[in-house]
Amino acid sequence: MTRLDQLRESMQVEGFDTLVVHARNNVRYLSGFTGSNGTLVVSGTDCILVTDARYAIQAPRELTSAGIDGEVRLAKGEGLAEVLEAAGPVTSLGVEGAHVTWNQAKRLEDAFEGEVIPTTGLVEALRECKGPDEIAAMKSAAHIADTALGEVVPLIAAGNSERHIAAALDAAARAGGADGSAFETIVASGPNAARPHHRPSDRVVEDGDLIIIDFGALAHGYRSDMTRSFLIGRGTSQQREMLDAVRLAQQAGVDRSGPGVPVADVDAACREVLAAADLDEWFTHGTGHGVGLDIHEAPWVNARATATLAAGHVITVEPGVYIPEVGGVRWEDTIVITEEGSESLTNFPKSPQR
Amino acid sequence: MTRLDQLRESMQVEGFDTLVVHARNNVRYLSGFTGSNGTLVVSGTDCILVTDARYAIQAPRELTSAGIDGEVRLAKGEGLAEVLEAAGPVTSLGVEGAHVTWNQAKRLEDAFEGEVIPTTGLVEALRECKGPDEIAAMKSAAHIADTALGEVVPLIAAGNSERHIAAALDAAARAGGADGSAFETIVASGPNAARPHHRPSDRVVEDGDLIIIDFGALAHGYRSDMTRSFLIGRGTSQQREMLDAVRLAQQAGVDRSGPGVPVADVDAACREVLAAADLDEWFTHGTGHGVGLDIHEAPWVNARATATLAAGHVITVEPGVYIPEVGGVRWEDTIVITEEGSESLTNFPKSPQR
Repeated sequence: MTRLDQLRESMQVEGFDTLVVHARNNVRYLSGFTGSNGTLVVSGTDCILVTDARYAIQAPRELTSAGIDGEVRLAKGEGLAEVLEAAGPVTSLGVEGAHVTWNQAKRLEDAFEGEVIPTTGLVEALRECKGPDEIAAMKSAAHIADTALGEVVPLIAAGNSERHIAAALDAAARAGGADGSAFETIVASGPNAARPHHRPSDRVVEDGDLIIIDFGALAHGYRSDMTRSFLIGRGTSQQREMLDAVRLAQQAGVDRSGPGVPVADVDAACREVLAAADLDEWFTHGTGHGVGLDIHEAPWVNARATATLAAGHVITVEPGVYIPEVGGVRWEDTIVITEEGSESLTNFPKSPQR
Repeated sequence: MTRLDQLRESMQVEGFDTLVVHARNNVRYLSGFTGSNGTLVVSGTDCILVTDARYAIQAPRELTSAGIDGEVRLAKGEGLAEVLEAAGPVTSLGVEGAHVTWNQAKRLEDAFEGEVIPTTGLVEALRECKGPDEIAAMKSAAHIADTALGEVVPLIAAGNSERHIAAALDAAARAGGADGSAFETIVASGPNAARPHHRPSDRVVEDGDLIIIDFGALAHGYRSDMTRSFLIGRGTSQQREMLDAVRLAQQAGVDRSGPGVPVADVDAACREVLAAADLDEWFTHGTGHGVGLDIHEAPWVNARATATLAAGHVITVEPGVYIPEVGGVRWEDTIVITEEGSESLTNFPKSPQR
């Protein structure tokens, strides 16, 4: 069944006959269109992409490549109401409530006589289980990231700034074939590593630092996500214990992952190992998240989440421990859930000592 | 008068006593907060930043650095209604209609007893005229971009791919101190240069190509924007005429720019020169746009726009000519409007021959 037909099934369940898709990656997923301005109107029989004149050549070509029997209309944002009118009688219209702006929703409500219903997560739910092409794209992104980190490892040394290391990593990924970084690369050293979302600064790496590097590559629209921790010099026994404990916790989370497993169990597996090492109080974020066209997407992996893993899910497992004044450690892999268990897409060695 | 007090004046004119600011760069402009998740609640007397625990240390520090007498509340998105309640009696609440999602607006309407009013462009209007610090940041971004292009010019040669040149440019900007590129770098060669928004591909530059390079640097949150065109080898007389005519058109647009000048006149100045060269039919986009925290912001420079330039406006002037099968040419500078006229922030020489 095509993605559009899967969506039409969901629409029927939700009880509306036409859906307007605004989120860029949802449009891309359904239609193959990669431009920055596109709105997709999906009815039981039709699929119309509304975009602007810049994409006059690209849009029909991309729809055809994706095997979509759809129509392209070149119109300004205000033209959407006309497209809907031309699309025939619609009694209830679904609109992505988490992606449409209030102004856009108001324009639709003004222009449209039937009921306008906000929907949430309809296309995102379809995107959770990845197909072979998507997994191949993510493998390619992960491989580029592995290689880039390998090239940059010599720079992870006292005397180099976080900013310098981050820039070199981004450049290596691009040179290796990435279309860009999957998200803003994190290089956090020394005290900065105690902050899970630190941005690269001018701080220069020093002997005795723990360093967290969290980055990914973007390839064919799909993303990878990997964190490796490093220790400059011998460090303290506390630092080495943190590195070991979080590595074991991460492995426990990966080992627990597989089809039919509640995501909360993966989270618990990581926390149990850290609790045994008396470090669980410093693990202050969730264990992971889905990855795909977006860097953060469903399913979410944390203690409160109720989802169950299935073959084709691609998630991160990324426990971390952050102790003020001491520093931080995080290990993360992007793994794909298989029929048998899981397979890691990111494979750079976990050897922290530098 | 502080930015917050300027905003409060606008709020009074618009007739509501509290504004919820969702757009990231509007939050940053008003409060100095640079995190990825922050909502600002501005009333006649208070300023409250609602963000999450990740920013517990960073947020108060950034508000203080920006001289903002504001309060930081760590809360989930759902906590916004409680913050509003705690902020005291509000009779009418403004919400950014172009930035708030429909779901967010609905939650506010549900939680709030008074009137909820969608606003558009309120903070954006304040951002149009840049202050000395903002212009200094943009000068720094533009200078980094000039230098990066100088370093990469030797790569603009037959045998190198668009993708390779773009990656080298981005890396040079980062190495030169940029926090990143201002937008996705465009390197469009040969037939690709006939498409104004081409993305770098694996196409390899050939002798006789026209090449358009459109890129900018990001520094201190502010962006620069510059386009240079190149010709590989001697090229044809038609190509050289395109390069000359568009350069003269761009210069005419810059010369016409100054305080008190309608933006439509700047657009017309460019078009007149291209019309004299019989090339105006191929100039298919507007002449320019404001630049600042966002790469595209007010004021817009085109034939239909009604704004008038003022000192402190920072705009691009970027006429282009795109002829299918032949290629394209665009020249662009980012200029700041001064009391006397204008000053270009981007200054890389316009010497197309390679």
